[in-house]
Amino acid sequence: MTDATDATTDVKDWWQTAIIDMEPGRIAFRGRPVQDLIGTVSFPQMIWFMVMGTLPSPAEAALFEAALVAAVDHGPQAPSIAAARMAATCGVGINNVMANGVNMLGNVHGGAGEQAVMLYADIARRHDDGTALPDATAAALDDWRAAHGRFIPGFGHRFHKPVDPRAPRLLALVDAAAAAGTVAGRFAAIGRAVEAHLAAEKGKAVPMNIDGATAVIFAELGCPPPLARGFFCLSRSVGILAHGWEQMQQGGRNKGPTPPHYRWTYTGPAAGG
Amino acid sequence: MTDATDATTDVKDWWQTAIIDMEPGRIAFRGRPVQDLIGTVSFPQMIWFMVMGTLPSPAEAALFEAALVAAVDHGPQAPSIAAARMAATCGVGINNVMANGVNMLGNVHGGAGEQAVMLYADIARRHDDGTALPDATAAALDDWRAAHGRFIPGFGHRFHKPVDPRAPRLLALVDAAAAAGTVAGRFAAIGRAVEAHLAAEKGKAVPMNIDGATAVIFAELGCPPPLARGFFCLSRSVGILAHGWEQMQQGGRNKGPTPPHYRWTYTGPAAGG
Amino acid sequence: MTDATDATTDVKDWWQTAIIDMEPGRIAFRGRPVQDLIGTVSFPQMIWFMVMGTLPSPAEAALFEAALVAAVDHGPQAPSIAAARMAATCGVGINNVMANGVNMLGNVHGGAGEQAVMLYADIARRHDDGTALPDATAAALDDWRAAHGRFIPGFGHRFHKPVDPRAPRLLALVDAAAAAGTVAGRFAAIGRAVEAHLAAEKGKAVPMNIDGATAVIFAELGCPPPLARGFFCLSRSVGILAHGWEQMQQGGRNKGPTPPHYRWTYTGPAAGG
Amino acid sequence: MTDATDATTDVKDWWQTAIIDMEPGRIAFRGRPVQDLIGTVSFPQMIWFMVMGTLPSPAEAALFEAALVAAVDHGPQAPSIAAARMAATCGVGINNVMANGVNMLGNVHGGAGEQAVMLYADIARRHDDGTALPDATAAALDDWRAAHGRFIPGFGHRFHKPVDPRAPRLLALVDAAAAAGTVAGRFAAIGRAVEAHLAAEKGKAVPMNIDGATAVIFAELGCPPPLARGFFCLSRSVGILAHGWEQMQQGGRNKGPTPPHYRWTYTGPAAGG
Repeated sequence: MTDATDATTDVKDWWQTAIIDMEPGRIAFRGRPVQDLIGTVSFPQMIWFMVMGTLPSPAEAALFEAALVAAVDHGPQAPSIAAARMAATCGVGINNVMANGVNMLGNVHGGAGEQAVMLYADIARRHDDGTALPDATAAALDDWRAAHGRFIPGFGHRFHKPVDPRAPRLLALVDAAAAAGTVAGRFAAIGRAVEAHLAAEKGKAVPMNIDGATAVIFAELGCPPPLARGFFCLSRSVGILAHGWEQMQQGGRNKGPTPPHYRWTYTGPAAGG
Repeated sequence: MTDATDATTDVKDWWQTAIIDMEPGRIAFRGRPVQDLIGTVSFPQMIWFMVMGTLPSPAEAALFEAALVAAVDHGPQAPSIAAARMAATCGVGINNVMANGVNMLGNVHGGAGEQAVMLYADIARRHDDGTALPDATAAALDDWRAAHGRFIPGFGHRFHKPVDPRAPRLLALVDAAAAAGTVAGRFAAIGRAVEAHLAAEKGKAVPMNIDGATAVIFAELGCPPPLARGFFCLSRSVGILAHGWEQMQQGGRNKGPTPPHYRWTYTGPAAGG
Repeated sequence: MTDATDATTDVKDWWQTAIIDMEPGRIAFRGRPVQDLIGTVSFPQMIWFMVMGTLPSPAEAALFEAALVAAVDHGPQAPSIAAARMAATCGVGINNVMANGVNMLGNVHGGAGEQAVMLYADIARRHDDGTALPDATAAALDDWRAAHGRFIPGFGHRFHKPVDPRAPRLLALVDAAAAAGTVAGRFAAIGRAVEAHLAAEKGKAVPMNIDGATAVIFAELGCPPPLARGFFCLSRSVGILAHGWEQMQQGGRNKGPTPPHYRWTYTGPAAGG
Repeated sequence: MTDATDATTDVKDWWQTAIIDMEPGRIAFRGRPVQDLIGTVSFPQMIWFMVMGTLPSPAEAALFEAALVAAVDHGPQAPSIAAARMAATCGVGINNVMANGVNMLGNVHGGAGEQAVMLYADIARRHDDGTALPDATAAALDDWRAAHGRFIPGFGHRFHKPVDPRAPRLLALVDAAAAAGTVAGRFAAIGRAVEAHLAAEKGKAVPMNIDGATAVIFAELGCPPPLARGFFCLSRSVGILAHGWEQMQQGGRNKGPTPPHYRWTYTGPAAGG
């Protein structure tokens, strides 16, 4: 029946995906039966495969995995972690606790890696056009600052001085992967060009931080900028879960940000005003 | 074409609602054209009409409105408010800020009103069965504690001692509405029976708090327990929005729970462990 | 002790607010004791007072109230409503259901009112500079399209043709309020100038929609653009709660978007690929 | 200064964690410097280490990894996936898209694994007390149904008939791990005892599904029930991200659940009613 078919087809077509195919007793992800993936591919491979559509080699997956491991947590001073811990005392499910944390990984809290991938890509484009790397870097940083302000995403750290211990370790893994031919090493060079430019500019080191270093990895592997944030969210979800669960074990009800007797400073009109 | 009709009908029927009807140029809520409601019914009337399905009288709506006004905020020590303010510094939209706050109004943070409505309903059922109100109250409290622990929802306050200033004002409005015949006043009597029981039990006042008092109003108006939480969420959304917006004006990036130099106390294994 | 005082002061000062002041037994919002507000101010007045810091007159509050009433719901085809209804079948609390809906009121779903306030403000600035209103409107629309694309927020509707029934009713209330001196009526004139410009441009009416009309109200009342979204979130929370609750009554487990037998259209590589 | 010290100590102590220690230039997770973990432990090892506090052996981690890989996605008919895809068209960040999905993994949508771990633990306790496994299973199922209704979590599938293809593969990996001495195999036996009981009861197979099988793995590894849900949330976050990102690539604005022309079935009072 043509009309009936059309009716069912437009409903079915409203939801289109290349990720999963299914019928009773059969599940395939991007053409591979699920039972052939379970126990065969690693979790990082599966993450990349689901999101990006290609199965990374073990060496590529190892680099991706290092980025995932590195970014899991930055402690209860991070607003996402504090909020998750507070949520854990409010009588909601552990999934709600996790959602509250991830929901806060916005442009400011979770966006530096994404922005660094964008910045690196801009430098790469200028370099492709024949500009020398230092000049491409200088021009890209100028444009970035004109558009977004002084702050260069992925470099410097308000807390980890002089050096964010995660960055040199990640960069060493990129260098090893480049030496082995796993990745080209181009974005490691670009990241270092940014470091060199900032050091010359300031007269002191403004070293790459975790966001700059994971962005090097994501860029080497061909990840679009928004997914740098997406993958960071997967990684940080681990810390959010760990802290939410620890808080559930510690107990408490309606945990506030400071011991209750501190309250807050009132800055409004006087009572009766 | 029968088949085509069937196909479209099952899709259309998948989403059924008595709340809203619509065609191009026409919107009706529960049978009333939207343009007849705008400027005619108050926002509290509209809330009740949308959720409960009946349009409350102005006097009923005034009582409901008092409950909505009373519960808008309890300050930045409340985890939902603190989380919303922190979220406001993380680079997310104002709707995400609000969602983070509301998402935390779980059983512990937002559930006392709902629980108090349940408790009152249980007392009312026992009273309906012929038990005297003090005895019905005693039995219901015993059962509540057996099932849920010592804490009686809606009575006492860890901060507002001796009295939560919102409760007597709300109860006075219920009394006035009962005197005017707007409500029966039965749940005000039940709430006071709980107060009397607790005072006798402890040898000192354990006065009704905001949750106990709004629960009286919701119960008088015939609201099912889960909606006591739902209406509270609408009310507290106001404070969440106010605080989120104030924080956006104050600025800050990735605001943590305490000034950063306090960090936290580490209780795990020693480094190298 | 100076040091001790400093220590407590910086913690207290970390959380500053002009919204609420509190000590045991006392709560004041922006200088007014809570018990003086309950039963005295309307819920819309309280919303504006909490968020904006000033208590609107009854006539101003009535206009604001009309905007809040108008935007409560647009049915289960709206993604926020559909998601809330689906969430209601997943075993989460009613506050989580509401948070899921509000969290989706982003730039595209919930931002048109905010954008329209920005557009109106731009036209007003140009008009203040001495440009005639039609020319100020034309220039502002040109700039808006250069920055944001063809779509003019607040005008036209993909569904409600020829007219969104909420807009003329809201505009009539603004006109009445302007006639009574409650508001200046300037932004109603600006909104109509946009309508006139679009009609001339297209050769047919592209009438103001709900977002354009509520934006007129918010702009007349002096509301900053982001709060147009914030207030819309408060309003739409009502529909989200109503639909979430109705779905809870209807039951269901893990409700999907279409009847299950439709599934979806798979567009990826063939199995074994 | 004693007082000053006390003041800072109570603030610092308000946030206690055994997960992370930090000072400028140094980050350690549960006593291990972050740079020693990056590139050394796998992501599944890191997940377990962060949440559970112990570093699993590679063989244990491989079993855990299989559970994480198996549960990443179940397609756009799952409400969490549909909601995430709709959110991706509403103008919110990719982290908000992910949060919306995870927030819906409540008791009904995400709780079956957690419940199955609880059920298995109850059977194990009865077996420890000397009851034969079939009898312990029968008694535990009776009690489960008395408390929670007919549905046994982790067994049967409304869609995958006769068999959920993920379950036998996971169980084979558990068997291999038991044969190798990595795990005891006790919960695989318990899961099979439940299968046998249900088959005898119904006169046909009600096979273990993904939730029952991942619960076997989590129970073998010593995971508390709520973390079965937490780990599932981490796993399903992958599919949520993949679908959210795919939808962002497909575009669309305010995607509803069905093609818009279907709308919904209105069941309320007639207009003018």
